[in-house]
Amino acid sequence: MTLKAMGKAARDAAYELAVAPTRQKNLALLAMADELEINEQEILAANAEDIAAARAAGLSEAMLDRLLLNPSRLAGMAADVRKVVSLDDPVGSELDSRVLENGLRLSRRRVPIGVIGVIYEARPNVTIDIAALCLKTGNASILRGGRETFHSNMALVKVIQRALAKAGLPAASVQYIERPDRELVSELLRLDEYVDMIIPRGGANLHKLCKEQSTIPVIIGGFGVSHLFVDVSADLRRAVDVIDNAKVQRPSACNALDTLLVHEAIADEFLPALVARMNSRQVALVAEERAFSLLQAAGASELRLAGADDFDTEWLSLTLGVKLVSDVDAALAHLRQHNACHSDAILTNDLANAERFINGAGSAAVYVNASTRFTDGGQFGLGAEVAVSTQKLHARGPMGLEELTSYKWIGQADYLSRS
Amino acid sequence: MTLKAMGKAARDAAYELAVAPTRQKNLALLAMADELEINEQEILAANAEDIAAARAAGLSEAMLDRLLLNPSRLAGMAADVRKVVSLDDPVGSELDSRVLENGLRLSRRRVPIGVIGVIYEARPNVTIDIAALCLKTGNASILRGGRETFHSNMALVKVIQRALAKAGLPAASVQYIERPDRELVSELLRLDEYVDMIIPRGGANLHKLCKEQSTIPVIIGGFGVSHLFVDVSADLRRAVDVIDNAKVQRPSACNALDTLLVHEAIADEFLPALVARMNSRQVALVAEERAFSLLQAAGASELRLAGADDFDTEWLSLTLGVKLVSDVDAALAHLRQHNACHSDAILTNDLANAERFINGAGSAAVYVNASTRFTDGGQFGLGAEVAVSTQKLHARGPMGLEELTSYKWIGQADYLSRS
Repeated sequence: MTLKAMGKAARDAAYELAVAPTRQKNLALLAMADELEINEQEILAANAEDIAAARAAGLSEAMLDRLLLNPSRLAGMAADVRKVVSLDDPVGSELDSRVLENGLRLSRRRVPIGVIGVIYEARPNVTIDIAALCLKTGNASILRGGRETFHSNMALVKVIQRALAKAGLPAASVQYIERPDRELVSELLRLDEYVDMIIPRGGANLHKLCKEQSTIPVIIGGFGVSHLFVDVSADLRRAVDVIDNAKVQRPSACNALDTLLVHEAIADEFLPALVARMNSRQVALVAEERAFSLLQAAGASELRLAGADDFDTEWLSLTLGVKLVSDVDAALAHLRQHNACHSDAILTNDLANAERFINGAGSAAVYVNASTRFTDGGQFGLGAEVAVSTQKLHARGPMGLEELTSYKWIGQADYLSRS
Repeated sequence: MTLKAMGKAARDAAYELAVAPTRQKNLALLAMADELEINEQEILAANAEDIAAARAAGLSEAMLDRLLLNPSRLAGMAADVRKVVSLDDPVGSELDSRVLENGLRLSRRRVPIGVIGVIYEARPNVTIDIAALCLKTGNASILRGGRETFHSNMALVKVIQRALAKAGLPAASVQYIERPDRELVSELLRLDEYVDMIIPRGGANLHKLCKEQSTIPVIIGGFGVSHLFVDVSADLRRAVDVIDNAKVQRPSACNALDTLLVHEAIADEFLPALVARMNSRQVALVAEERAFSLLQAAGASELRLAGADDFDTEWLSLTLGVKLVSDVDAALAHLRQHNACHSDAILTNDLANAERFINGAGSAAVYVNASTRFTDGGQFGLGAEVAVSTQKLHARGPMGLEELTSYKWIGQADYLSRS
């Protein structure tokens, strides 16, 4: 099938999905969860092929781990799908409704976006994840996974197709681009006649490609340098705990701390306590000159002087940038120069500085006396997360089910003309 | 100044605007309205230059009328700016706020989008309009008007600059791309380092250009074929009035009716009444075969058989497509094949068909027993309108001040770490 034919089929399926009752969509999701369990052996066998090929191709252990499915991960995927069943269906709810002076009853009703194209790499659970979230919100999806997980994805798509058939929903509700040709990605990005939104889930290069080539609105997200500013009035003892959490709990996450900004007036007192904790956590420090001297004197075990790009780096590892700043404005100036668009925090007891930081930081999520690690759909109570948007249009930060919907205006009256 | 330098200056201005109090922004708007009146002579003289050049270049009278400023239009512009002053400032309001189980107080606060690029043609009032709406919402704007209104726009930009200075806001809050080079538009569309959103206000070609070249999110809007379906249970006498309003009140508007779909069971009875009214309004009818015969028999004074593209045409004039359909599903099928994405209506007394039409139509605005002409920010009570979006991301239908904002997540706690 050509990509254009897939787009047309998805569009037709989207019309059906848009009016499918929640009960029917949930039926498909429950069937999907069941099928994941029923077909465990088949899925794991397909995954073993991918793993063998990846190992032969010399992929890193970290990469292999991302590709790997096992009974417990598969059970987790089924549980996640059942979780989506339990979430409220946003489609059909009305955002507001009022009667205008002229008698027109005007409301806005949530509707599916339509057809969503998702391009992703590695982790095969994304296939099930996205299919489930799109289905719940009445969107048709066209998926394009990485070639490393091709066999796993084929097995998962079979599971999805069985579930759709069981629930009586069109097969084209979830389609997968099987052919590996790279041009198909470019073609998908220009299929604006049929596709309403593109979600890229992958590295910076994929996002760049989508931004540059897509004629379809793209949700950009996931990247950004995360900062934490320790103000002069912060509780320094507890500050170390929050920094520890932000940096160490899951260094590979996009909400992990990258750069620590310390008010210069408390640097002498604070940095030794920081060094003690970071040494115990095997965190390497990368510091600008003034911070470097103090950290060195405090006995930092892994320490180097920061180079030109270090404060623009999302570490995704146990490395932490450290810099002294003169006040909250200097901290904000640093944020602006260094791509702060994801999660940033201030530790302070000063109400005015807290408000200044909240309003001045350009980040999707801003924290006062809390860890940057909270930026997450699950933590925010959204139940599920499609992506973390760092753009300002449509949705910002963690995107849940509602962010997979649009709305339409509805005007009802008694044969009313505009005067 | 290079476009990149303009982008950087806009970004810096946006930081200031984001925290500017409403009072200061309103001060600038009031000054802008005053300056429009104070500098009436200068603005009209500049406009006269544009008109003379346009006339020499042989532009149509309709086009000349779009370019023209006169004392009453200028007064209208000033009044519109004062209207924006009276609207609530959406920036800073919180969408929701709650305390999570772990003690994190989580809220979403409305913030400006940042820097907005606007590309537009003809009408010089757009310069003031957009500058005012962006300013009110704390967004910096970079404007690129058409060459036909260059002198008018230069005079208006002076007015805006004086107003910004009076209110103590940065000059780069509103910037205008003066050089006429076409490449600058392409360059603006790729200035994603500094610009957060592109609003094209112009013809289909401009929208296409933006969609294809922009690496910045674009708001697509304004176009779409508008339909009205007369169901079998409609009140036929009053139906003629609503159709008259939708087609005739302002044929050049994007919410004017393009295609009339008539239930075949009532065609014999209804079409003669329609013909009588349309004849009296000098509306030309373009009909598919079955409708053609009936309309001809009823004595339609201007009538031709529809060709292949006629039902894909936004007429923007006193022409109306007419087609018979077998039921509401056939009407919806026609909508889907013919780019119904703007405003569509059903006239019916059947509750099930009304709901079916509401949910099945893919339009930004759907009406039951009301004219398509209501799709308008002013009519919807938004107070002002930046554009009418026909895309599904971010905003749909008429966009007011709120649609010029984004939001940020704010988490506040007492030194809270993620568990």
